[in-house]
Amino acid sequence: MTTQARALQTRRAIVRAAADVFVKHGYSGASLSEIAHQAGVTKGALYFHFPSKTALASAMVLTQNEANEALEEYARTYSGNYLDLLVSMTRELAARLLNDPTLRAAMRLAVERGETEDATLAGTYETWERVVGNVAQTAKDRGELAEHVDPARLARFLVGAFTGLQTVSLVSSGLGDLEERVEDMWTLLRPALEAGVRPESSSGPSSTESAADQATSH
Amino acid sequence: MTTQARALQTRRAIVRAAADVFVKHGYSGASLSEIAHQAGVTKGALYFHFPSKTALASAMVLTQNEANEALEEYARTYSGNYLDLLVSMTRELAARLLNDPTLRAAMRLAVERGETEDATLAGTYETWERVVGNVAQTAKDRGELAEHVDPARLARFLVGAFTGLQTVSLVSSGLGDLEERVEDMWTLLRPALEAGVRPESSSGPSSTESAADQATSH
Repeated sequence: MTTQARALQTRRAIVRAAADVFVKHGYSGASLSEIAHQAGVTKGALYFHFPSKTALASAMVLTQNEANEALEEYARTYSGNYLDLLVSMTRELAARLLNDPTLRAAMRLAVERGETEDATLAGTYETWERVVGNVAQTAKDRGELAEHVDPARLARFLVGAFTGLQTVSLVSSGLGDLEERVEDMWTLLRPALEAGVRPESSSGPSSTESAADQATSH
Repeated sequence: MTTQARALQTRRAIVRAAADVFVKHGYSGASLSEIAHQAGVTKGALYFHFPSKTALASAMVLTQNEANEALEEYARTYSGNYLDLLVSMTRELAARLLNDPTLRAAMRLAVERGETEDATLAGTYETWERVVGNVAQTAKDRGELAEHVDPARLARFLVGAFTGLQTVSLVSSGLGDLEERVEDMWTLLRPALEAGVRPESSSGPSSTESAADQATSH
């Protein structure tokens, strides 16, 4: 094996170990010693490839950005129903989370972004929301979304809800039930999103208001 | 001030400081020194009240359990529409998160539960799901939910989605947009949950029929 090939192999082992440690302990709980130990390298070798914990975190986030770009590219060439595309995007993300430790780490880091103070970590949610928002906007433009659905708000909701589904699924089943949770989301949500649904024909917002008043007055 | 009153005041200051530090750094990133410093007490005083970080975390989680019990009690005496009650429960939780640092800390700890290895931290999501699930089941029994909606899955989804909304809202706006995010969720989701909505008929002519059914039943 050449020196370069060996270096690349070491780098990959470190990224993989860092992903596991970030998922387990979060950003602030992760120690470089534990990452080096788990990767089977010296701390010197780790520092040679990644001078800081921030550098390691950036490597994870780059993975997520690449995944976003791949999704964007796919959406550009897509020719089917764009509401279906939204559904399959979340399904694929769930499947990839199960198979890709660095993506799991990127999601965990996004949750903790407030503390990392690194510009490359900023904008993770915004990028993801933009990708989902563009697909939702196309669905709207093509008349595939119900009139009352705002594409930007739908995108923001999907990103937030998915973040929670994977967080709770990770804690309660090690992601074992994530795909089922995503299916549940669409079973519950999709009937309200499809063109032809008119929410104003239901019991109306005034009943919710009165219930809220009732609840807060106690 | 009596010795007892002073001790209680110190204890409260520690819990409040611990809540801030847990929200900022997470469980594994929180240090007892920082908590003592922020509470303005010695480490000795901190150890007198809370012998470990786990004991502090348990104090936060007890807060969340109390909130769940209050919700359960409220649901027992409620007499309105139970889908409305689900909506107002999430609205109230959002409002309380904005005002209660220990509840914010409890939410953050629930996200990290995997690492804390403490039995009192286990079951946070399960308890919350049970409370929400009972309300959803009552809504179903009373014919207020659409036929295709499974109460247990709806409860699991609401807990997961809300967890994500507050996580993303905390990172992106310090919870400033949480209430707006919760309203968006209901705007998008509610039309699909109400009795009378039949997802398989949404785009066909029978959608007018279901609206008509609803009109006569109100």
